Amino acid sequence: MNKCASIITFNIIILSLIGCSLIAPKAKVPEMDPGFCMNCHQEVTPGLFQSWVESKHAKNGVHCMTCHIDHQAATEQKSMVFPDKCGECHKKQIEDFQESRHSIGFERLRIQGEYLGIPQEIRAAFCERCHSIEKKCNSCHTSHRFSLKEARDPAACGTCHLGPDHPHKEMYETSLHGTIYNLTQNPDRAPRCVTCHMPEGSHNSSFGIARGPAGTRSPVVDLKEVPISKEEQERRREEMLGVCTGCHSRRFAQEQLENADQVKEAGFKLMEEGKESIQEIAKEGLLYPSVAERMPHPTEGRTLVLADPQLYIGTSYIERLFFTMFKFHSIRVWKSGYHFSPAYTHGYGWIEMQLDLIDIKEEADKLRELLKQEKK
Amino acid sequence: MNKCASIITFNIIILSLIGCSLIAPKAKVPEMDPGFCMNCHQEVTPGLFQSWVESKHAKNGVHCMTCHIDHQAATEQKSMVFPDKCGECHKKQIEDFQESRHSIGFERLRIQGEYLGIPQEIRAAFCERCHSIEKKCNSCHTSHRFSLKEARDPAACGTCHLGPDHPHKEMYETSLHGTIYNLTQNPDRAPRCVTCHMPEGSHNSSFGIARGPAGTRSPVVDLKEVPISKEEQERRREEMLGVCTGCHSRRFAQEQLENADQVKEAGFKLMEEGKESIQEIAKEGLLYPSVAERMPHPTEGRTLVLADPQLYIGTSYIERLFFTMFKFHSIRVWKSGYHFSPAYTHGYGWIEMQLDLIDIKEEADKLRELLKQEKK
Amino acid sequence: MNKCASIITFNIIILSLIGCSLIAPKAKVPEMDPGFCMNCHQEVTPGLFQSWVESKHAKNGVHCMTCHIDHQAATEQKSMVFPDKCGECHKKQIEDFQESRHSIGFERLRIQGEYLGIPQEIRAAFCERCHSIEKKCNSCHTSHRFSLKEARDPAACGTCHLGPDHPHKEMYETSLHGTIYNLTQNPDRAPRCVTCHMPEGSHNSSFGIARGPAGTRSPVVDLKEVPISKEEQERRREEMLGVCTGCHSRRFAQEQLENADQVKEAGFKLMEEGKESIQEIAKEGLLYPSVAERMPHPTEGRTLVLADPQLYIGTSYIERLFFTMFKFHSIRVWKSGYHFSPAYTHGYGWIEMQLDLIDIKEEADKLRELLKQEKK
Repeated sequence: MNKCASIITFNIIILSLIGCSLIAPKAKVPEMDPGFCMNCHQEVTPGLFQSWVESKHAKNGVHCMTCHIDHQAATEQKSMVFPDKCGECHKKQIEDFQESRHSIGFERLRIQGEYLGIPQEIRAAFCERCHSIEKKCNSCHTSHRFSLKEARDPAACGTCHLGPDHPHKEMYETSLHGTIYNLTQNPDRAPRCVTCHMPEGSHNSSFGIARGPAGTRSPVVDLKEVPISKEEQERRREEMLGVCTGCHSRRFAQEQLENADQVKEAGFKLMEEGKESIQEIAKEGLLYPSVAERMPHPTEGRTLVLADPQLYIGTSYIERLFFTMFKFHSIRVWKSGYHFSPAYTHGYGWIEMQLDLIDIKEEADKLRELLKQEKK
Repeated sequence: MNKCASIITFNIIILSLIGCSLIAPKAKVPEMDPGFCMNCHQEVTPGLFQSWVESKHAKNGVHCMTCHIDHQAATEQKSMVFPDKCGECHKKQIEDFQESRHSIGFERLRIQGEYLGIPQEIRAAFCERCHSIEKKCNSCHTSHRFSLKEARDPAACGTCHLGPDHPHKEMYETSLHGTIYNLTQNPDRAPRCVTCHMPEGSHNSSFGIARGPAGTRSPVVDLKEVPISKEEQERRREEMLGVCTGCHSRRFAQEQLENADQVKEAGFKLMEEGKESIQEIAKEGLLYPSVAERMPHPTEGRTLVLADPQLYIGTSYIERLFFTMFKFHSIRVWKSGYHFSPAYTHGYGWIEMQLDLIDIKEEADKLRELLKQEKK
Repeated sequence: MNKCASIITFNIIILSLIGCSLIAPKAKVPEMDPGFCMNCHQEVTPGLFQSWVESKHAKNGVHCMTCHIDHQAATEQKSMVFPDKCGECHKKQIEDFQESRHSIGFERLRIQGEYLGIPQEIRAAFCERCHSIEKKCNSCHTSHRFSLKEARDPAACGTCHLGPDHPHKEMYETSLHGTIYNLTQNPDRAPRCVTCHMPEGSHNSSFGIARGPAGTRSPVVDLKEVPISKEEQERRREEMLGVCTGCHSRRFAQEQLENADQVKEAGFKLMEEGKESIQEIAKEGLLYPSVAERMPHPTEGRTLVLADPQLYIGTSYIERLFFTMFKFHSIRVWKSGYHFSPAYTHGYGWIEMQLDLIDIKEEADKLRELLKQEKK
């Protein structure tokens, strides 16, 4: 957009804001000329300004001060707009969101061993970028365009749900669901993340999830970490089947989800086998460094932690082998079972777990062999 | 599409089906009111119904019963429609398909050691999802839209041809061919999978493939596993060159394919070096578990199997190191040579093979060292 | 395009070329009938011909002979068109390009140890495909369409800047920047590679880069490998901030870049820890093969080379462990810090570096243990 056109747009926006004040939004708008901020910001941050101009907010008279309160606050460090503020207009969405695991993203992070063991600059560059979703509606509804089209696209979910430890994005993209959606861009032709996890615009992204969580801990839990009853699990499974049957027969959908349940169990069984090997080695006193010799676990103390919340720093080599098995490979097997990605279930998951098991048993043998030599 | 519009569409469809019966398709259509299924299915499986509505099948009077025969059969377990059925109308395509390796996908799977060694739920979640292509035209022509645009897109091929053990999709997407096609979506500007492997709509996807196969077995074979003659290999190379010269000079194309031949040989040489290290270790009696101590190979029996059809379960650690070399890294080197992906040839392939070789030789040394200690 | 339409297009092209000769391009066009080449080439290389037909070159009377000089030269081996030729018309672009590291891509490759150690066919299949950018404007401006849209797309940069040893493409695509751009295809909504690295069409792709390079060598250097002064580094940082502030507040942008600086330092510190472990092992005489026993490094001679330009062939196992740490994992940590990809900084980078460190220390312990046993 050239400068001239931009100024015309700006004037139209100002005029509509004046008009819009007659049909005021629900949130209380402080008494301030909306042109005050924009006068400068169309020059100093043109990209930001342009995004807002094209937003539904702009069309509905939601301007800088509606959310940032006053110009003083907006220029201060960390002038973030928190969900409470958004909730003044988007009440239903915030209520749903509070039911989802997204709403405890930061709270859970703060007590995570992995997070506690690293310096602040490192935390800021990764952990906090995603876990701040608890405090940032613009994790998904990116500033300052707040486009629904963007927020509903699998790519929006994929900015956090990706990578070796939770490749949801990659699983989806390598499934038939993801392939057809990417090809057609038609959510009636194939599901996107929100089709199954946030149906009908619900902001409770934990919808329909009946099995979980990662690691070797037991069944799915609620937001207070309390295991969910068998009945509640069945109710959730029915919820999910309700989505599947939009396109598939109930028989087929049930078969697929039950197969995924079995794949999950098979993967966990392999993980247990690895765990037992290491527990035996620990009993035989062959962990170097031993649990006693090393820094205590930040949340679990002086104990052998295998699987979540196991750390990847300062452990013995055999525990490090298990870390990869549980953190990267096991999650691929079981989660891709439910996301229907053969490549992630098999090549990136099941094969890797079997190779991990060989590695762990080999290391156990070598440790015992070295001990035998030493005793001679 | 809202419900009202959907009902109107439905009525139009029914009317056209009545009209279409005058220009009947080749396949015999059982005497049944086509509205019988749709009456319910537009409600119970709206996504499925909508996909069919938009299909060429719908436009040409091919409805539920044309393929699923009767409603009873359609609701039974595994009411799949097999290629024979599709072939009643699509004769040429089925004939071509029978010439391709796709047509023996399931047959080959059933006698594969890897497949035989794992429980049924695991087989269902990965192996069978892709290898069922032998029995499912809708592996590529996804139900119930059967869109030609979708089937011809590299993404359709990529639902199976991806992952650590055959990253054709990833190689293509990281080549200049794939990059330009993805950018332009113009098959005249850069080739897609089907441009080279299924030219002019041929369903013989083995077209023009003159070198192969994976593993350390020798040259390309026909569908009966009989090696193909030198002359036939040259004829196929000429076929492929015929595709390349649409855009490139013959000199350039030939040079590129011959370079790929050499890259393949160089990768195989590295693999042979790894193999020999392990064969020596086996002769020295240093495989743990030894071939005698372990479960016999499901198809090869009590023998040391290195490269295809090697298993990844229950082998010695040094064999597992070779498994990764042959199954994941070697295939990247040689296949990406022909798909022109520098990242897969080098970073994901060649470097990894060289590192595998160091790992294998180190393990051989350690095994010998431990034996020496033991004998003291 | 069918044949008939193609011939009509061809005639229109010829007619416009005659017209275009009245508004001659800057470069001297040899006296030759432009139809001479095309007469055949629309038949023998229709894809190539069609790409040119749609190019700005075709519209502006730049035809085969303008660049390829004469038909004889064009059919000879390696009839490449070099930047000098392009520079006859595109002067400013070539001048900028000469300031960038792209312009020394091949020169730097030729003296690289990795490159020197491998056979020519392997070099051709990977190294040279990308490093030839020094000599090929059509590395980015792909032949014969030379589309600006294509060259400016992140995919164009991504044909080389990808893979385990420099996953710039993957980092970008997993950042919020890349996600929003891919979704919207709108460079005003989110930056592409060229937004930050080639602003306002500059062909100096080293613009604004103030920290570097890969490996454990010190700060950013100029094209003659001379370290850049503190002042020049600050000037470049200001250049980059000038781009960021199009959308972000200066405070936020500065904070983000400074955090990336710290992430980089933290990653380098881990790498130094690994390096020191290996240097100690070398002093204790436990490298197998030792530096004396192995082929000298092609550029560094008989010395222990850790980090760039370390080789991945024929080294000891412990050095190979460090190779992966420096070549694949360290670069992900520090470069993704600046590209804002949490997955690459953490899962693919930081975790892997920590695991590498455990592997290296474990191997050091095992080497010492074996020595102890041997001495008994």
